[in-house]
Amino acid sequence: MISLNLKPAEKFIPKTLYDKYLQKALNSFDVLTDGTGMGNDFIGWITLPSTISESVTDRCLLLRDKWKSMGVDTVVVIGIGGSYLGAKCALWALQPSFGRVGDDFPEMLFAGNNISEDYLYELSKYLKDKNFALIVISKSGTTTEPAVAFRILKKLVKEKFGDKSAKERIVAVTDSVNGALKKEADREEYETFVIPDDIGGRYSILTPVGLLPIAVAGFDIKLMLKGARDMQEQCAVRNEKNIAVQYAAIRNALYDTGKKIEILVNFNPKLNYFGEWWKQLYGESEGKDKKGIFPASANFTTDLHSMGQYIQDGERIIFETYVLVKEACNKLVINKEDDDSDGLNYISGKRVDEVNKMAQTGTMIAHTDGGVPNIVFEMEKVNEYNLGQLFYLFEFACGISGYILGVNPFDQPGVEAYKKNMFALLGKPGYEENTKRIKNLYDFNR
Amino acid sequence: MISLNLKPAEKFIPKTLYDKYLQKALNSFDVLTDGTGMGNDFIGWITLPSTISESVTDRCLLLRDKWKSMGVDTVVVIGIGGSYLGAKCALWALQPSFGRVGDDFPEMLFAGNNISEDYLYELSKYLKDKNFALIVISKSGTTTEPAVAFRILKKLVKEKFGDKSAKERIVAVTDSVNGALKKEADREEYETFVIPDDIGGRYSILTPVGLLPIAVAGFDIKLMLKGARDMQEQCAVRNEKNIAVQYAAIRNALYDTGKKIEILVNFNPKLNYFGEWWKQLYGESEGKDKKGIFPASANFTTDLHSMGQYIQDGERIIFETYVLVKEACNKLVINKEDDDSDGLNYISGKRVDEVNKMAQTGTMIAHTDGGVPNIVFEMEKVNEYNLGQLFYLFEFACGISGYILGVNPFDQPGVEAYKKNMFALLGKPGYEENTKRIKNLYDFNR
Repeated sequence: MISLNLKPAEKFIPKTLYDKYLQKALNSFDVLTDGTGMGNDFIGWITLPSTISESVTDRCLLLRDKWKSMGVDTVVVIGIGGSYLGAKCALWALQPSFGRVGDDFPEMLFAGNNISEDYLYELSKYLKDKNFALIVISKSGTTTEPAVAFRILKKLVKEKFGDKSAKERIVAVTDSVNGALKKEADREEYETFVIPDDIGGRYSILTPVGLLPIAVAGFDIKLMLKGARDMQEQCAVRNEKNIAVQYAAIRNALYDTGKKIEILVNFNPKLNYFGEWWKQLYGESEGKDKKGIFPASANFTTDLHSMGQYIQDGERIIFETYVLVKEACNKLVINKEDDDSDGLNYISGKRVDEVNKMAQTGTMIAHTDGGVPNIVFEMEKVNEYNLGQLFYLFEFACGISGYILGVNPFDQPGVEAYKKNMFALLGKPGYEENTKRIKNLYDFNR
Repeated sequence: MISLNLKPAEKFIPKTLYDKYLQKALNSFDVLTDGTGMGNDFIGWITLPSTISESVTDRCLLLRDKWKSMGVDTVVVIGIGGSYLGAKCALWALQPSFGRVGDDFPEMLFAGNNISEDYLYELSKYLKDKNFALIVISKSGTTTEPAVAFRILKKLVKEKFGDKSAKERIVAVTDSVNGALKKEADREEYETFVIPDDIGGRYSILTPVGLLPIAVAGFDIKLMLKGARDMQEQCAVRNEKNIAVQYAAIRNALYDTGKKIEILVNFNPKLNYFGEWWKQLYGESEGKDKKGIFPASANFTTDLHSMGQYIQDGERIIFETYVLVKEACNKLVINKEDDDSDGLNYISGKRVDEVNKMAQTGTMIAHTDGGVPNIVFEMEKVNEYNLGQLFYLFEFACGISGYILGVNPFDQPGVEAYKKNMFALLGKPGYEENTKRIKNLYDFNR
């Protein structure tokens, strides 16, 4: 199981302060698990790993096999926010950094997470020669970014493969009953998967929102759910050893002492998008009511050569949370050179990962020396099982942490602000009242 | 030319405060351009665009043509920090989001910017079937990350193509005289390009560090230098209208009022890595002596669905700097649908970019409404010329800004800390004294 080491952070805060937050965390644990807290209509994810029906995972695998048999070589996953980051994070972690996952599985692309004309144009052009399919993920079906991408790519599917084939090539992950996408899917006979009503976007990675793209790409979603289930069991134990409780406690204690920024750090490029997933989870859950830790991420050692200077010696308002990986999946040894012109012979014969491990330890010592508290998670290996653990662990800790902070960790009212203005500027029916004010403000940016 | 709009930030600070920092910025301008400030042995980049020899750019283009004639289909650029981020940023901006730049130009890959065993293993495997070449970029040649990658990939080149062909397939961008890589290149007869002595890594994008990979990938480096040169001319004018002076002034004024975090924002996926380049430039230049603005970046609208909530309504310690693009490079119109189930017909007939523009404006209004000052740069189009402008502008402003803050914007002493510990842990000759202390601390992370 994933481990947590608080030692490199504890020395920065008085024990009494940590104990105070540990108590708060246990109280928040109760509120979360009793379902008596704010936003308690969105806590379906708590029991999801142990309750998800086998028929859901089986249907994901059936779709994978169906598309394989159709020779589908490219799948575009259309979604934004929680309907994008979970799958992106998992696929980035599991796929090889270069090339494909064998010849059997499709290349996975993403769309609908921006409003870039060039991106959609270039994607459309790229797809012209591909045997492609679409997974469109949206609870409502009316969120602008995925809706625009879906409209354009759906047209492409129909033009290239015909209306009949489109029914086999488009799958919707959406609301069980309501919403524009559900209605359209029923009418057009697209297969659908359900996003449960009581699970919000950023907590949805273990629903078909994440599971379907991960399965289609060729990975073991049952193993991922097993990891999540084991972590669910571990997180359900109410005590001071619970690592979700500990993490929620210490990060709030650090925040209390003026640490305003948390940097989620990895030493493994496969976890680069884990930081992005985590930023949404924590930023959207806690960044409200003019408070919350600012979530940032860094990929080491890459970013030691960009953000490293600041972390070592800039304003002391940061702490780091490391997600480390014990074992590499492949083996590569540093070769010896006769002339040793680069001076690396002292590490020849070592595995590359051994050097990486010393960089890890060296960095943690340097940063704590420099006044940056470190919270250290460690997992065995990057695989489906451990990712399942990781997702659940951070979700559960986030629920607790939000309640410690005194906010509703399950809403995101602030996300509507830009949308309302955009709709007003675009003249969307129903937004006329806002349009006048916004049009007046429009020049303000000129 | 790139424009700057300060209006959406000015209302958050008293005019007197801005004027105070404008004066400081003008003084810093003098110190920078007179060459009398801290780190003045590293200001070669100031006159670089107007003084770089045509023979340098010509040699970049010759190498491009040579590799084309050899049928090279893949080029690995080996480097970290400033020897990675500039080229990565430019290539990400200029290359299509999917697929290749025509059939003529090689796929560009990066290595040596991490110590990941899996990354190097998977890259080696991927290269087995490729007709590949290497550009290794390192002033010293002994920085661990690129040196390890170079050692492993160099072996691959020699095994696959033979020692003689290796001389045609390996190019070093390095110090003019000293350094391990320069010596090795001379001995092994690799072609070399010079990193000028008076230009540090994060200011090196317009030297062969950036120019060579960009040229090899098929882009117009002379046009990029033209953009930089035009911006150099504009930045050289000492007055209050100078946008580099203005940017340096206002960001320091905002910092003075407690805005601790600057988020570099784009609304165009092609600029995603511009934020990474900018983070190194500002973070490494200013994050020292326990001060400096914390640099973060966000890609909108993608991240409006992750960091958007925090920015709208979290702690009011942030401001945003937008780098906007007026025109898309391609044209794509939103199609009409008969049934309008997604409710998008009200924007059918519009270009996708038009919707993006309204998202931009809507976001700026929402965020300033929410208490987040906005600084807004705008460029015409993503192309070589404008990127050249952008690089120079932000470099010049960074020099001024660092001097306002009272730090040396051209050193990075903090980056050494993790390296020293790592060397000690790895038992590198010369680091024995440190080894004992570090080994004692080692258990501290367990």
